[in-house]
Amino acid sequence: MRENTLRGIWARGGAVVNGWLSIPSSFSAEVMAHQGFDSLCIDMQHGVVDYQVAVTMLQAISTTSVIPLARVPWNDPPRLMKILDAGAYGVICPMINNRAQAEAFVRACKYPPSGSRSFGPIRAKYYSGADYHEHANHELLLIPQIETAEALENLDEILDVPGIDAVYVGPSDLAMALGSQPRLGQNDGPVVEAKKRIVDTCNRHGVPAGIHTPSAEVAQKMIADGYRFVTIASDDRFLSAKAAAEVTALRRALDGS
Amino acid sequence: MRENTLRGIWARGGAVVNGWLSIPSSFSAEVMAHQGFDSLCIDMQHGVVDYQVAVTMLQAISTTSVIPLARVPWNDPPRLMKILDAGAYGVICPMINNRAQAEAFVRACKYPPSGSRSFGPIRAKYYSGADYHEHANHELLLIPQIETAEALENLDEILDVPGIDAVYVGPSDLAMALGSQPRLGQNDGPVVEAKKRIVDTCNRHGVPAGIHTPSAEVAQKMIADGYRFVTIASDDRFLSAKAAAEVTALRRALDGS
Amino acid sequence: MRENTLRGIWARGGAVVNGWLSIPSSFSAEVMAHQGFDSLCIDMQHGVVDYQVAVTMLQAISTTSVIPLARVPWNDPPRLMKILDAGAYGVICPMINNRAQAEAFVRACKYPPSGSRSFGPIRAKYYSGADYHEHANHELLLIPQIETAEALENLDEILDVPGIDAVYVGPSDLAMALGSQPRLGQNDGPVVEAKKRIVDTCNRHGVPAGIHTPSAEVAQKMIADGYRFVTIASDDRFLSAKAAAEVTALRRALDGS
Amino acid sequence: MRENTLRGIWARGGAVVNGWLSIPSSFSAEVMAHQGFDSLCIDMQHGVVDYQVAVTMLQAISTTSVIPLARVPWNDPPRLMKILDAGAYGVICPMINNRAQAEAFVRACKYPPSGSRSFGPIRAKYYSGADYHEHANHELLLIPQIETAEALENLDEILDVPGIDAVYVGPSDLAMALGSQPRLGQNDGPVVEAKKRIVDTCNRHGVPAGIHTPSAEVAQKMIADGYRFVTIASDDRFLSAKAAAEVTALRRALDGS
Amino acid sequence: MRENTLRGIWARGGAVVNGWLSIPSSFSAEVMAHQGFDSLCIDMQHGVVDYQVAVTMLQAISTTSVIPLARVPWNDPPRLMKILDAGAYGVICPMINNRAQAEAFVRACKYPPSGSRSFGPIRAKYYSGADYHEHANHELLLIPQIETAEALENLDEILDVPGIDAVYVGPSDLAMALGSQPRLGQNDGPVVEAKKRIVDTCNRHGVPAGIHTPSAEVAQKMIADGYRFVTIASDDRFLSAKAAAEVTALRRALDGS
Amino acid sequence: MRENTLRGIWARGGAVVNGWLSIPSSFSAEVMAHQGFDSLCIDMQHGVVDYQVAVTMLQAISTTSVIPLARVPWNDPPRLMKILDAGAYGVICPMINNRAQAEAFVRACKYPPSGSRSFGPIRAKYYSGADYHEHANHELLLIPQIETAEALENLDEILDVPGIDAVYVGPSDLAMALGSQPRLGQNDGPVVEAKKRIVDTCNRHGVPAGIHTPSAEVAQKMIADGYRFVTIASDDRFLSAKAAAEVTALRRALDGS
Repeated sequence: MRENTLRGIWARGGAVVNGWLSIPSSFSAEVMAHQGFDSLCIDMQHGVVDYQVAVTMLQAISTTSVIPLARVPWNDPPRLMKILDAGAYGVICPMINNRAQAEAFVRACKYPPSGSRSFGPIRAKYYSGADYHEHANHELLLIPQIETAEALENLDEILDVPGIDAVYVGPSDLAMALGSQPRLGQNDGPVVEAKKRIVDTCNRHGVPAGIHTPSAEVAQKMIADGYRFVTIASDDRFLSAKAAAEVTALRRALDGS
Repeated sequence: MRENTLRGIWARGGAVVNGWLSIPSSFSAEVMAHQGFDSLCIDMQHGVVDYQVAVTMLQAISTTSVIPLARVPWNDPPRLMKILDAGAYGVICPMINNRAQAEAFVRACKYPPSGSRSFGPIRAKYYSGADYHEHANHELLLIPQIETAEALENLDEILDVPGIDAVYVGPSDLAMALGSQPRLGQNDGPVVEAKKRIVDTCNRHGVPAGIHTPSAEVAQKMIADGYRFVTIASDDRFLSAKAAAEVTALRRALDGS
Repeated sequence: MRENTLRGIWARGGAVVNGWLSIPSSFSAEVMAHQGFDSLCIDMQHGVVDYQVAVTMLQAISTTSVIPLARVPWNDPPRLMKILDAGAYGVICPMINNRAQAEAFVRACKYPPSGSRSFGPIRAKYYSGADYHEHANHELLLIPQIETAEALENLDEILDVPGIDAVYVGPSDLAMALGSQPRLGQNDGPVVEAKKRIVDTCNRHGVPAGIHTPSAEVAQKMIADGYRFVTIASDDRFLSAKAAAEVTALRRALDGS
Repeated sequence: MRENTLRGIWARGGAVVNGWLSIPSSFSAEVMAHQGFDSLCIDMQHGVVDYQVAVTMLQAISTTSVIPLARVPWNDPPRLMKILDAGAYGVICPMINNRAQAEAFVRACKYPPSGSRSFGPIRAKYYSGADYHEHANHELLLIPQIETAEALENLDEILDVPGIDAVYVGPSDLAMALGSQPRLGQNDGPVVEAKKRIVDTCNRHGVPAGIHTPSAEVAQKMIADGYRFVTIASDDRFLSAKAAAEVTALRRALDGS
Repeated sequence: MRENTLRGIWARGGAVVNGWLSIPSSFSAEVMAHQGFDSLCIDMQHGVVDYQVAVTMLQAISTTSVIPLARVPWNDPPRLMKILDAGAYGVICPMINNRAQAEAFVRACKYPPSGSRSFGPIRAKYYSGADYHEHANHELLLIPQIETAEALENLDEILDVPGIDAVYVGPSDLAMALGSQPRLGQNDGPVVEAKKRIVDTCNRHGVPAGIHTPSAEVAQKMIADGYRFVTIASDDRFLSAKAAAEVTALRRALDGS
Repeated sequence: MRENTLRGIWARGGAVVNGWLSIPSSFSAEVMAHQGFDSLCIDMQHGVVDYQVAVTMLQAISTTSVIPLARVPWNDPPRLMKILDAGAYGVICPMINNRAQAEAFVRACKYPPSGSRSFGPIRAKYYSGADYHEHANHELLLIPQIETAEALENLDEILDVPGIDAVYVGPSDLAMALGSQPRLGQNDGPVVEAKKRIVDTCNRHGVPAGIHTPSAEVAQKMIADGYRFVTIASDDRFLSAKAAAEVTALRRALDGS
């Protein structure tokens, strides 16, 4: 089975640099796969991406050695199983708030006897190799999102669930859950403290903590704070930020001339 | 009929700031339509975009007041007519090298008696208004590309063809045609001179000259040189440039820490 | 944030004229958006429409000022959240039968603290404006369907749930639930009575009642009966009705000649 | 090989009632296939339909006994051959203006020795039967459009070309070619006369004349005038006409109440 | 309503020969529909097929008399209802483990009063006939999958649920559930015994048992053992098996020459 | 630039084993890419494949080291340039009958100064490497089809054109051109002789000859006859052959039991 190189990065004490795909296009996915990320996560929750186009995006990523991940829209066995069958090498699952939800998440993603994943790795076996089903339970990454007050409270029991490989912080949802504004509230006391508490708890459990960030600068800071999986913005934000910057620069130059 | 605002910009002596769409997605097109461009051109020649997805991109652009243009892959009546029927408000046509080709281009895009465009503005009439066919011959922009030695030589006769509204320089093709490297050869003497000669000739004919540029900085320089329609890079280049810049910044910061 | 004009229509005492989209095409959606409806509802339950094409249909509707709505296939947080993120300005949700289901429906569609909608209005923020998340809880319309005997019984408690903006009657399901034939049973006593009871209860709660109708004639009657949101047939029914009428007319004329 | 029933209708002295498909959807195509038409023509010229979706529309039509036709965007061998390979049982080809163009059209559509169609009926052999290539030259309908002054003048020589099975009048293009307005000019003298002259010439050659009409009423009149293949409007026009009629009826009723 | 011919095969004591579709393409589906199967099942669980392309595959199958079935990804009302509305004449539902799940499955697929299926057979009524809703409850096949230890234990109570028309064995999942390897463990004692027990129990209840097999040879053996619905491999397995066999044969011949 | 391994196979005196893709699906393309072929050719002429899905198929092939080729529908600059920009590493071009057509074919595929290919390798540069444009003229394979009597006569002059890397025989078209039946006429004298003559002429020019074959057996024979590029059947033929064989085997076994 093709190795999941993210485990190696963590084993060597490194941090994973992850990219985020919200544009429903195998071409933009392939462009992103050439920019130096360790992994790319297809966002099927908030991204404009559903299963059928996600498959072509997984194929596009597979033209490189970048590890393909997917965020599913919900802790839902059919959605989890189907994107794993398509060759995702890990899944980020939103709104895991307690042990029972974490266990259900793991169960849906592991073949028996560890879980109840149904057998049929239709594309995964091509991406990964003919021995996929023998190693999938050990190679695939299962990453719950910690983004509610309930999840914060239950973080220890979530991290105790066997099969949880990392956690992922959605800062906007976390901020809203804590009464702050999404995105802007990242420096609010309770949010900053929560992010710190998550990484500390993860460290105690020996589980890498991950987080979404708006930029390399914040990503670096998060790594300094102990996070070991950082996402930098997303394809649509790169596109809009760069386009707006260029147009603004030109219009300003023209106005000033 | 909905006004083609690019004509107004030129009438007021301004320069059009154009964006370029190579990613086959109506979502990325809509993102680009909110970044401040005057117009967006769907590249059906070198972009990863064919007719069916181009229609959804035209619709996405039409959610804003940005003017939708298309570059066709060839000076070919069915391709020209079909994208105009879909609501493009102008077409850039590659490889127009002489008067005959310019005339054929115009003929395919104008309704009788000015040309031989076939009647059937299936989506254009919704985008533009019920009186589309009465005004289309005057509103739509016909923009040949000047990108070969032959075209340079014949520029006067091309600009003499009634119905040619502007010209567009493809600097890479022009550079290769003049024996320079694509993209990098923009400062080679013959290429620089050719670009100057084109804009001068256009000025003499009172026809706006357009050009593809890699950045706001070059775009500004081109406008200073007299160009009145400038494209800044493209969606895929914005995406790759910003993604690579962020990843590189983070990796450097991590290496240095 | 772009205004939800349906609220204004109701505030002025008017009735919303809604169209229904079952054909999976952004072109037919755009055609429908030019026919005078106040809103168009993409039917993701019984229509031949899944998420990815629904996004292009939302874009097509957004080329006009018509308000885009969606009927989801189920009271299911990921489906509700994902179509709202795509820019639907309201959702009709089938099979809401009691207070708990109504509360779950509202919770999935409201940002904290009113609910648990996850943050990520990927396309909605372009359609609506950068302040989308500040106003979404107040602007978006949440419309449960009343179509079972259980729902009829629990209508008062459903209408008591904060955040329910209107209700929608599916007459076929309601008829079958009451032991009548779908569609044809609309004049059966119990169905007629149920429809009357719904509108009366809604009026008591000050909540607009909506209903699906087969024609302008029935729609008018429903409005006379107090309904304030009426759907006329659907795109596929308009298509088949008009096509069949024309073919029949021609064949009859030819037979008679 | 499956029989081309249109030939039988003509052999029995009847007129073919044809429908027109401009919406890019296999579902709307299937709806249209159940409304009583003898044949359905997928419009790849002015319709919003390119090859890939046209294949699914051909399949949708093939769920019934309705004969599938296609209008190609141009007299162009690759486009003609490819849609025939996909199972179209006839092609309407725009802008055939003289004998040479008619001969080129026929040549592209006939297998050797009658023409130079390349062998590869990839889907046609499933639709039609394993002996497709033995009968295709005789069964498929080749229908040039007569829509310019030049074509009118050369109609006799066009009809003399072996393999031309019928002709098709595009009234809008014909009207524009004769200096009238598209669509509305149908009662202008020169247009009316041209339409009469076409049907008379066809009758002399024993070739059925076809024409696009806006309604059953005009279709009936055209049949009375000798036309034997009539198209009634199109799917998008049925949709917009019926939707607009219903909305208008409701709004009028509400205004009047 | 179009007859479900599978019921007739069973009534005559025969076995249904079923094909399996995992490739997301209406063309490959149409190819498969011409190879002699009684029915074809679109695999929406492990196949690379989601709803929108499944509709075009149902249309492709409907160009023949082969009966279209679908395997849904989960026992989930919206998924079940939506694929039935699209014209599937039966559904295979994974992971039905007890009476309650079987009852929920049936309830989602039957119109009132037998169940709670919502009314809206948008495409089914074209495929099946205008009286679809009157007969659907009797014609459509509801086939739970038996693939866990729990289901084995509860098989009697599952078969007691009114509306269960057949059962389907997923041998890989069953093998894993019993501690064997997927696919290869088919000759392990417990798996062989379980398959025998299932068919015996089904026979006692007068319900046909179905099973997935890798080849005609195993399928024949299963029929000899009493199974009356057999799937032979799948489209992707036919494709890979034949391609690999041909390439290997050629390479061996070249090596040996 | 990524190496075109087919040149290496020929340099070592070997024969290329090529697969053929007619099914419009990136999944079936990926399946085919794992079966041991040296190259895979996407058939955009007779296959059910147009540009947009072809791009996803090129991506699917690029997940392996198999070399991606495309057959274009026509000797047409925009089609040739666009599929090369998408990353095809060679093109097969139908109906090249003389020197002028061969020269036009080469010209469209080579950057200046060797030809007039327009610059914009949008996806090719990701597949191949950043130095794509420096090496493309030397790496990409240009393969005209020899399939008419005229081409046979002009074979020497076609092979004299600089830039022609191989030729490809379409046996069905060739057979029809010589008055035989497509496919079955392969043993007719004139066809057999023509195939021999082609390979002999190619050998004289030192240019590899290629041919389409129905099976490994015929492919082996062709290689024995001197062909050095052989296609074995196609994806749709593998699928139909294997499916039909299995169904027939089962039905025979059941009939005999």
